[in-house]
Amino acid sequence: MQKNSSAMSKQKPSLAKGTRDYSPAVMMKRQYIIDIIRGVFQRFGFMPLETPAMENLSVLMGKYGEEGDQLLFKILNSGDFLKNTRQDDFAKGYKPLTLKIAEKGLRYDLTVPFARFVAMNQNDLAFPFKRYQIQPVWRGDSPQRGRYREFYQCDADVVGTESLICEAEIVLMINEVLTRLGIPGYQIKINNRKILAGIVEVIGAEGKETELCVAIDKLDKIGKEQVIEELRERDFSQEAIEKVLPVFDFGGDLPSRLQSIEAFLQNSAIGLQGLAELKEVFMLVAASTGSSIEASHVVLDITLARGLSYYTGAIFEVKVSNTAIGSISGGGRYDNLTGTFGLPDVAGVGFSFGLDRIYDVMEEFGLFPEATGSSTQVLFSNFDKAAEQYALPLLQQLRAAGINAEIYPTATKLDKQLKYANKKAIPFMILIGEDEMQSGLLAFKDMRARTQQALSLEEIIQKIQEK
Amino acid sequence: MQKNSSAMSKQKPSLAKGTRDYSPAVMMKRQYIIDIIRGVFQRFGFMPLETPAMENLSVLMGKYGEEGDQLLFKILNSGDFLKNTRQDDFAKGYKPLTLKIAEKGLRYDLTVPFARFVAMNQNDLAFPFKRYQIQPVWRGDSPQRGRYREFYQCDADVVGTESLICEAEIVLMINEVLTRLGIPGYQIKINNRKILAGIVEVIGAEGKETELCVAIDKLDKIGKEQVIEELRERDFSQEAIEKVLPVFDFGGDLPSRLQSIEAFLQNSAIGLQGLAELKEVFMLVAASTGSSIEASHVVLDITLARGLSYYTGAIFEVKVSNTAIGSISGGGRYDNLTGTFGLPDVAGVGFSFGLDRIYDVMEEFGLFPEATGSSTQVLFSNFDKAAEQYALPLLQQLRAAGINAEIYPTATKLDKQLKYANKKAIPFMILIGEDEMQSGLLAFKDMRARTQQALSLEEIIQKIQEK
Repeated sequence: MQKNSSAMSKQKPSLAKGTRDYSPAVMMKRQYIIDIIRGVFQRFGFMPLETPAMENLSVLMGKYGEEGDQLLFKILNSGDFLKNTRQDDFAKGYKPLTLKIAEKGLRYDLTVPFARFVAMNQNDLAFPFKRYQIQPVWRGDSPQRGRYREFYQCDADVVGTESLICEAEIVLMINEVLTRLGIPGYQIKINNRKILAGIVEVIGAEGKETELCVAIDKLDKIGKEQVIEELRERDFSQEAIEKVLPVFDFGGDLPSRLQSIEAFLQNSAIGLQGLAELKEVFMLVAASTGSSIEASHVVLDITLARGLSYYTGAIFEVKVSNTAIGSISGGGRYDNLTGTFGLPDVAGVGFSFGLDRIYDVMEEFGLFPEATGSSTQVLFSNFDKAAEQYALPLLQQLRAAGINAEIYPTATKLDKQLKYANKKAIPFMILIGEDEMQSGLLAFKDMRARTQQALSLEEIIQKIQEK
Repeated sequence: MQKNSSAMSKQKPSLAKGTRDYSPAVMMKRQYIIDIIRGVFQRFGFMPLETPAMENLSVLMGKYGEEGDQLLFKILNSGDFLKNTRQDDFAKGYKPLTLKIAEKGLRYDLTVPFARFVAMNQNDLAFPFKRYQIQPVWRGDSPQRGRYREFYQCDADVVGTESLICEAEIVLMINEVLTRLGIPGYQIKINNRKILAGIVEVIGAEGKETELCVAIDKLDKIGKEQVIEELRERDFSQEAIEKVLPVFDFGGDLPSRLQSIEAFLQNSAIGLQGLAELKEVFMLVAASTGSSIEASHVVLDITLARGLSYYTGAIFEVKVSNTAIGSISGGGRYDNLTGTFGLPDVAGVGFSFGLDRIYDVMEEFGLFPEATGSSTQVLFSNFDKAAEQYALPLLQQLRAAGINAEIYPTATKLDKQLKYANKKAIPFMILIGEDEMQSGLLAFKDMRARTQQALSLEEIIQKIQEK
């Protein structure tokens, strides 16, 4: 810093509030998760889609409620953004002014851009259309621990079919991803919105489905007594509350619970339809795997509602045991993805993995393989010009054998190079000095085991490929 | 549409100007390119980095010249963005108003966020720090053919070292990527900024280096005569112009061209230093590959300047023969990446692949492998409930064998399912009817060859894995 004191007066750089850099060490781990999710999605016939970060506000506004509209990041029009304004526009406050100076916003989720894409490309797509999308989204929430203004979503949806095979495939995909990641003790909670509709019908609280869902949705967080209190506040009658109580307590194994639910819903056509759909999904999962529903981590939870009111059939949520981290995945079936864009009756089912939460679970349980620590496997030392010249063609041979390798770019003392390798978590070093150049046997150093052997390049390649 | 006529009155959705969706077919091809670039970057010891889409405008402004500042997309402050404004701010025009209502902008390139990251994390990084970054950037240019407001850059930089090994490695990486992509007939043009400084010194036009670079930079586009005309307009003396003329015509093989340049620069210390650096890079490339510079597609071009004035050493540019598509890669050495963020003397060298241009070259020459057409390899037919049940466990077996497969989700006629497979470019179908369920031999249809065979599942798996 001494050399250039004027630099001291320069600005201290900072990140925009609520955003993060993903350093190489973090990126390697995120990439590890993303590669597994992407691989499984493609294994199941889903194809990748990407949409632009910027969408017209006419596409985004009005889709996420008034609060969502507020949280959208809006982009100032290019050039003279004041050109469509008049002096008196400014006195009216910021809300009416917004649309006059900003036409575009950053995407808030992946669903609305997906719906726009389907509506715009309806004539070119192969329906049923199966797409996955792994991209960041932006929301102007107040940042807090675990909540960021930029975060990634990993969505997969099938649209253009009502087949329950899609629901079963989602269960299988979740299992495949979480098994590959090595996440222990998770539950794929499943419910059907029609069962909730049936419950409302049975307890004589028609038209209050949303209220029931909102209250039931909190069961996990606030407990049964508080939910009853909330139902009372939301004007459910004493009779309705008494009728709904058994729903919280259906016990026993899956067949007996299904029986209890069937008995409860016997006078509700829509409720029974929801139950039939659930059973069909269970049957399809069991037929696919050849084992029980329980083996597929599926748990029926008829109190599962999730906030989003556009679900019309199955509802999913995945929780991991023994951690305070919330649900790592959720989704459901909807029957009208694109109506708002002029294309009615597009039904589908989809779900989303929360990349940050999966990352946090993996960190908490120490599930990342050691190899995600670094992408570089070997560092060649550099002690002088002669050794450097000797190393260069060997370096290429290692790379040609599929090994990620580099050479320390300048001749310097060993200490500094060891420190570099350790900081970058590079597992192996090849040290080349006089002896090595004469014998052709290289000093192969295992940085973790702290061992060193004299080996030929071929032996080194074999050793690394075996790991 | 008849069913829901109110939908007809809904908005017709559109993309924000200058942006694109990447459909599954395009995404597969882009992903193919990105996977190769990422793989090669990591093979050479570069580690991934990602920075947020949004940066504080204090980080971005003033880094790209006045035009760049104009082209930055600015994000309206969340909530009441007018709260820091006064009534008379609006009369002053949009420019002074901008910073009062917008604190953040979208990143314009990957270099400035990288510099911010290095300055903020200087104490934690392993120097020399080698990072790659593959992310979109946003610029408010007027959209036109081949120019978008959102596009991807693929950057790789090494900072914290002046070693010319880094320059040599860049040449090797470019070769590796373009070889793996199968791009024929490309040239890695290379020059050194110090040679240009030497030329200015020799012709007695000290201080006019930028002007010479700007004029010479256009040599490819406008030809020698026009460049001379431009030099005249930029007040180069007749003597200087006459002295510079030989530079355009140094001919012969590489050794004789190097000799001519050396003779031309004999009285310029900085020019000779640039030449020595170039020769060293050539030597390092040759030592690494064991073959000639020409075999590494390297072409010395001492008229190569590139617009960016912050290059201080090597300059790179990659062009593909027999196409109108411009350079697909470029870069160079710089000696002050982070001075503006209070961290002086960070030297480095980097380059960038233009993903869109590489994509266009690959399309023009038909270089994408057939397999990038679809990620799904097999579609199971679905004719009735019994066949569906029969197919489900087989589908899982195919997936467990690493084959991307799906089942048509509803029972329907063959025609519709064939059309789906073709539209999605799925290469194989497995048809299951009465006969297949009885014999256990499945009808395996090759959609491209239009052939069909009765095979066991094991035989099918083997056949697909062989491809």
